[in-house]
Amino acid sequence: MANSKYEYVKKFEVDDKLPPHNWIVVRIDGCHFHRFSADHAFEKPNDERALNLMNICAVSMLEHFPDIVFAYGVSDEYSFIFKESTQFYERRASKLVPLSVSYFTSVYVMKWNEFFPDKELKHPPYFDGRVICYPRAKIVLDYLAWRQVDCHINNQYNTCFWMLVKSGKTEQEAQESLKGTVSKDKNELLFQQFGVNYDKLPAIFRKGSCVYIEKLEETVKLDDSGNPVKRLRKKVTVGHFDIIGPKFWNEHPYILEEEK
Amino acid sequence: MANSKYEYVKKFEVDDKLPPHNWIVVRIDGCHFHRFSADHAFEKPNDERALNLMNICAVSMLEHFPDIVFAYGVSDEYSFIFKESTQFYERRASKLVPLSVSYFTSVYVMKWNEFFPDKELKHPPYFDGRVICYPRAKIVLDYLAWRQVDCHINNQYNTCFWMLVKSGKTEQEAQESLKGTVSKDKNELLFQQFGVNYDKLPAIFRKGSCVYIEKLEETVKLDDSGNPVKRLRKKVTVGHFDIIGPKFWNEHPYILEEEK
Amino acid sequence: MANSKYEYVKKFEVDDKLPPHNWIVVRIDGCHFHRFSADHAFEKPNDERALNLMNICAVSMLEHFPDIVFAYGVSDEYSFIFKESTQFYERRASKLVPLSVSYFTSVYVMKWNEFFPDKELKHPPYFDGRVICYPRAKIVLDYLAWRQVDCHINNQYNTCFWMLVKSGKTEQEAQESLKGTVSKDKNELLFQQFGVNYDKLPAIFRKGSCVYIEKLEETVKLDDSGNPVKRLRKKVTVGHFDIIGPKFWNEHPYILEEEK
Amino acid sequence: MANSKYEYVKKFEVDDKLPPHNWIVVRIDGCHFHRFSADHAFEKPNDERALNLMNICAVSMLEHFPDIVFAYGVSDEYSFIFKESTQFYERRASKLVPLSVSYFTSVYVMKWNEFFPDKELKHPPYFDGRVICYPRAKIVLDYLAWRQVDCHINNQYNTCFWMLVKSGKTEQEAQESLKGTVSKDKNELLFQQFGVNYDKLPAIFRKGSCVYIEKLEETVKLDDSGNPVKRLRKKVTVGHFDIIGPKFWNEHPYILEEEK
Repeated sequence: MANSKYEYVKKFEVDDKLPPHNWIVVRIDGCHFHRFSADHAFEKPNDERALNLMNICAVSMLEHFPDIVFAYGVSDEYSFIFKESTQFYERRASKLVPLSVSYFTSVYVMKWNEFFPDKELKHPPYFDGRVICYPRAKIVLDYLAWRQVDCHINNQYNTCFWMLVKSGKTEQEAQESLKGTVSKDKNELLFQQFGVNYDKLPAIFRKGSCVYIEKLEETVKLDDSGNPVKRLRKKVTVGHFDIIGPKFWNEHPYILEEEK
Repeated sequence: MANSKYEYVKKFEVDDKLPPHNWIVVRIDGCHFHRFSADHAFEKPNDERALNLMNICAVSMLEHFPDIVFAYGVSDEYSFIFKESTQFYERRASKLVPLSVSYFTSVYVMKWNEFFPDKELKHPPYFDGRVICYPRAKIVLDYLAWRQVDCHINNQYNTCFWMLVKSGKTEQEAQESLKGTVSKDKNELLFQQFGVNYDKLPAIFRKGSCVYIEKLEETVKLDDSGNPVKRLRKKVTVGHFDIIGPKFWNEHPYILEEEK
Repeated sequence: MANSKYEYVKKFEVDDKLPPHNWIVVRIDGCHFHRFSADHAFEKPNDERALNLMNICAVSMLEHFPDIVFAYGVSDEYSFIFKESTQFYERRASKLVPLSVSYFTSVYVMKWNEFFPDKELKHPPYFDGRVICYPRAKIVLDYLAWRQVDCHINNQYNTCFWMLVKSGKTEQEAQESLKGTVSKDKNELLFQQFGVNYDKLPAIFRKGSCVYIEKLEETVKLDDSGNPVKRLRKKVTVGHFDIIGPKFWNEHPYILEEEK
Repeated sequence: MANSKYEYVKKFEVDDKLPPHNWIVVRIDGCHFHRFSADHAFEKPNDERALNLMNICAVSMLEHFPDIVFAYGVSDEYSFIFKESTQFYERRASKLVPLSVSYFTSVYVMKWNEFFPDKELKHPPYFDGRVICYPRAKIVLDYLAWRQVDCHINNQYNTCFWMLVKSGKTEQEAQESLKGTVSKDKNELLFQQFGVNYDKLPAIFRKGSCVYIEKLEETVKLDDSGNPVKRLRKKVTVGHFDIIGPKFWNEHPYILEEEK
C-alpha cells in the first residue's frame, strides 16, 4: 500500500531555518499565569518558590541543550540564548521553539511537587514561546538589558503596590497612589512608609536570574613534584547579577563571543 | 527610568500571522520517544496505556482550545486541526504552536501517574511541533489520510516484527524476514505463523485515534403534551475509525465545513 | 582557485516557495506615477494612450508567461493571476515578482514610442510589485471585485473633479464640492452640470481592462463531405467588462478552474 | 458604494520587513541572457559595450536610491548593497526588490540606443532579483569576495574557451581542452598558445565593476587671505578594483561602516 497518493500534503510544510551568524533567542512566557498564580496562591509580589522552580527548569534546559549559552529569567518568563553558530536541528524555528517550550513545561510539572509539596497542580501550567534572531553580541546585550530593566520597573512597582495593599489600602487606592511616580518616588515611599530599603531586598527579586556555564579551575591532585594538577570544570550556575553593566560580561567573555 | 533605550530590540520580532481561509494543522511529535518508550518499558508493538495517555491529552486540548475541530493521533504523534476561520491569537504561529505543544506536554506529565501508577517518570517527555496551512477541506482530508495510511503501514510492520521477535527470532532476523513483503504478505504471515487475523486486532492500533466534537441529540424532558423536548449536547469524543473513506465525514459534515 | 571559502554566504539566502494549491497574484503598481504622469502631460482624468500602453504590456505578459491566466489593470496598476497549479520557477516569490515587474517595465519602455511618438521619456518609469496567495477561486473573484470597485470609485471621483477644474474651479474648490458626495450625487452632478451620462463614458475608464485567453472555435477548412473542420484557437484578448457579477465568469469557466 | 465587502482580501498580504541591523543585498540577474546576448550578437567572451550599459544602470541606481552604498557587477548580474540602517520603504522586501529590478530594467532599455546605436532591441531584456540580509560588514565583504572570485573563475575560463574557438577549435574541442585545468594551467595556455598575458587584460573583464560614492575634497575658491576654501564633493564612481583584499576598503572605510 503506497502512501504516495497523499504525500503531496508534505509540500505545504515550510522551511523555516533561521539565518546563520545570528544569536537565537527563545523567550518562554507563562500563559494566563496571572490566574495560575492566583489559583495556586503564589506569594505577592514575588513567590520565591515559584521563581526557584522556574530557575531549576532553566538549569535543566542548559544541561539538556548544550548550545544554550545563557538564560535570563524574571517572573514567569525565561529567555534562552543559543550560541551564534548553533546547528541545533539545522536552526529550524519549528524545532527550536517547540522543543524548548515543551522541555521547559515538562520539567516544570515534574518538579512542581519538589517546590510545592503542599500544593497540588489545579490545572496544567503552560507557556508560549517566540524566537528572535540577533545579528550581534552587542544587540543581545541590549536585549538582556531590556529584560532586566523591565524586571526592575515591574518589581519596584509591585513591591510598592503590595506593601500598600497589605497595609490596608484597596487595590484601587494602591494603584492611585502610584500613578505618576518615578523610580525615586517609589524608593522614598518604601523607605518612608514601610522602612524598606529597596536595594536591600533579595537580588533574585530585583535583578532576576541568570543561568550560565561557569568555568571553574579546580585542583584534581598533586603531581609527583607536589605541584597542583588543575582542571577546568564546567558548571551550570544560577546568579542574580546586574547584566546591564559590563562587569559580568568582562568576567565571562566566552559566553557571547562573536565568531571571527 | 525609561526602558526606551533598549526597546529597539523588539523590532527584531517577526510578524508570523498565518494566512486567512486556511485550516491550520499543528502536529506534535514525541522527541526521542524511541528512547523514552524503552526507558519506561512500553509494551511492543503498541502500549495501550501510552496511547490512552496521548488520547486523554488530546481530549484536554479540544476542551481547552475551542477552535480545534479535530485531532488525529498515532503512536507518539498527534495532529490538531484548527478551524478555517479561527482567530485564536490572531492566527500567529508563534502562539499556536508553542501553546499547543506546551499544554499537551503539561497534561501528559500531570496525567502520567493515572496511566502508569507503577512507573515513575525517569526523564522529561517532550515534543516538537510544527504548523501547516491547508487551503481546502479536501486537502485536510488528504492530510489525515496520509497520517492514517502511515499508521496502517507502521502498525502492520511492527505487529509482524514483534511477533517474530517474541517467537524467538533476533531483531536482525525479523527484519530480514520482512524485507520486500507487501501488505498482503504480512497478513498471510500473521495468519499462517501466528493464527492472528490482522483485521481483528484492536482498532486503536490499526486505525489510530480520532478526537472530535460529537453532537448528540438528547431528550431533556417531556413537554406538556408529552412530546420529548430535545437538546443538542456537544461532547468531546474519542473513536478509532476509518477516516480515509467518506463515511465518517458524511456523518459529521460540520467538522470540516468550508466557509462560504 | 576554489570559491568554497566564501560560499557560506549563500546560506543566508532564503527559501521562499509559495504554498501549493493557491492562486498567485502579482500586483504591479507604478512608483511615483503621479509625478511621472504630470511630467509627461498625461490627459486627465484618464489618458487613453497611457492605458493602452499598460494594456499592451499586460498582453505581452500573458504571451510570455503562459501560467498567467488573467490580468486586470486600472490606472498605473496591473494584477496578474498565475494559475493555481503553476510550477513556474518552483513558485519561488523571489523569481515570480521580479521577473514579472521587470518584464512589464521592459515592454513599457520599449513600446513607449509607439504610443507616445511625440513625447520622449524624461525619466525612467518603474513599478513596485507584490505577491499575494489566494486559496480559493471564490476569493480571487473577490480580489478582482475589490480592484474593480476601486476603479469605479476613483474614476467617478476623478471624472467629476477634472470636469469641475476644467470648468473653471480651482482644484481646492473642486475637492470641496465633492466632499461627502455619494455615487449617485456624482452621477447627478455630471449630468446636471455637464450633460454627461457617466454610464456612457468609455468602458475602459469605468471598468478597467481585463486580459485573458479567449478560446475561439474557427473553421479551418471543409472536409471531403463538405462539413466544416473546426479548431480551437487561443487568443490573448483585452476587454472592459464587469467582473464583479457572474456573467463573464460563467462564459469563461476555464480561467479560474479549481483543481480537483 | 462601499468597498468594504471585498476588502478582506487585503488580509492575505504578508508583512515582509527585513530584520534591522543587517545590510540588505539586492542581486539582479539577467533572465535568459545567454539567448539575449546571442540574439544581439554580444562579443565573446566579453562585450565591453554591454558591460558599460550595465554599469551606467548601476550608476543611475546609486544616484536614484541614496541608501545604496555599494554595487558590484559582473556579466549580466549586479549586486546592490543598502546600508545597514536603511529605512527605505520600511525595509519591506516587497518594495526593495521590485523597485530595484524595475528601475534597473527601465534604465537598461532607455539607454540601450546610447550603447548600441547600431542594434535594435529584438525582445525585452529582463532581470530577476533576490534579497539577502547580512548581519555584519565582514560577511558583506565575504559576499563581495564570493562574487569577485566567481568573476575571475568564469572570465579566465571564458577567455581560454573563446581563444580556442576563434583559433579554429569546435566548442566541444575547446571544452575538452579545458577539462581539469586549474587557474595556473589556463594562464599558461593563454601565454603559450596565444601570447596573452592574462593579467594585462582589461580590469573590467578580470575584476568586474564597482560603483560607489567617492568623497572628493575640492577647492571651491580662495578666501580673502588667499587660502583655499575646500568642500567635500560626493561623486558616484565606477572602478575595477580588487575588493577581496583590504586595500580598497581601508581607503573607503565609510562605505560599510557598522552601526555602533
